Amino acid sequence: MTLKLHNFFRSSTSVRVRAALNLKGLEYDYIAYVLRKGETRTPAFKSLNPQSLVPALEREDGSVLTQSLAILEWLDETYPEPALLPQDPEGRARVRAVAYMIGCEIHPLNNLRVLGYLEKELGQSEETVANWFRHWVQETFKPLEQMLADSPYTGQFCHGDTPGLADLCLYAQVWNNRRFDISLEPFPTIRRIFEELDRIDAFASAAPPRQPDAV
Amino acid sequence: MTLKLHNFFRSSTSVRVRAALNLKGLEYDYIAYVLRKGETRTPAFKSLNPQSLVPALEREDGSVLTQSLAILEWLDETYPEPALLPQDPEGRARVRAVAYMIGCEIHPLNNLRVLGYLEKELGQSEETVANWFRHWVQETFKPLEQMLADSPYTGQFCHGDTPGLADLCLYAQVWNNRRFDISLEPFPTIRRIFEELDRIDAFASAAPPRQPDAV
Repeated sequence: MTLKLHNFFRSSTSVRVRAALNLKGLEYDYIAYVLRKGETRTPAFKSLNPQSLVPALEREDGSVLTQSLAILEWLDETYPEPALLPQDPEGRARVRAVAYMIGCEIHPLNNLRVLGYLEKELGQSEETVANWFRHWVQETFKPLEQMLADSPYTGQFCHGDTPGLADLCLYAQVWNNRRFDISLEPFPTIRRIFEELDRIDAFASAAPPRQPDAV
Repeated sequence: MTLKLHNFFRSSTSVRVRAALNLKGLEYDYIAYVLRKGETRTPAFKSLNPQSLVPALEREDGSVLTQSLAILEWLDETYPEPALLPQDPEGRARVRAVAYMIGCEIHPLNNLRVLGYLEKELGQSEETVANWFRHWVQETFKPLEQMLADSPYTGQFCHGDTPGLADLCLYAQVWNNRRFDISLEPFPTIRRIFEELDRIDAFASAAPPRQPDAV
């Protein structure tokens, strides 16, 4: 079985999926797109994913999975070991809530097409766009830090001592933050977990600078 | 068992959870917050949800679930009938992808705090803010319409003939669009599914105008 991952080295949602594929021990072909050059807006790419978004995971039968969080759930259901979610519904709800705090409250506001709209359609300066990015990270990292620091369920990672769905999102987001020099000093628990994850090869080898299309 | 739903009539993520509770036949206490008055920014509310966001689902033991998509998955795992997701991993991935197209690509860009930031921090006019809202709806509704119209898996609802996770998000989003007069004319499949859903009492009774705090 060969999976093809249509993705981009710097894309934070691509980092999530690469690290999950690595954790599950799945080989995949790396197919790179340069977002700024509009390479996901071609008819060929749209026939894979009409949303023109990466990542998209193509299976051997030609079927294509889209939306990184849906791909992660599919991977976990199809290749259960090691599990990305705990067994108990309350633990699963906690892990998903952390994942969605990042996946729904930070990332959608800070991806390339949104920053581009602020710059081009609304004529905002580079500095205003950078402040926008930092604002939405901090709006969620503040309560996330508190939730992680206060919870008895937080362990070596976001939930216990096994990396999972929440960690995939956290790891990718911290990499994304580096583009805008966001200090992790006010977020010691997030920083500690990021550093733990960065010592795991499945995560570290999914990071942007390690990809074949990195510039 | 009494569940308490901390929510707001117009909140699109609250609509999703209300409709799911109704589908599952679960009673709940309705606790309303006026977002514009900052009622979710009080210390009392932050002790329930440090993110200051609705909806939050409080259980009888005092534990609190946050992030609407995590709440929906928890409801489905804890009260399996009727199911919000199909049984097969590919079907589940398709339903989740549709849900996340709305939950990750539209809603986060268009919620109150983001529109408020555009208006107050970036000094944008009411018209620019309305165009922003419409732009992000259309950016996703165009490929969503195509994906729903072209797929053999689309039935009476987004996936087959049983309403589920994707329909909860679609129904809530179409209600949300009404605040900005977005025509569904270019989106006939989305419109048809919305109209089907609106004939189901579990959905219709979750709609904003039917709530006790509706103004």
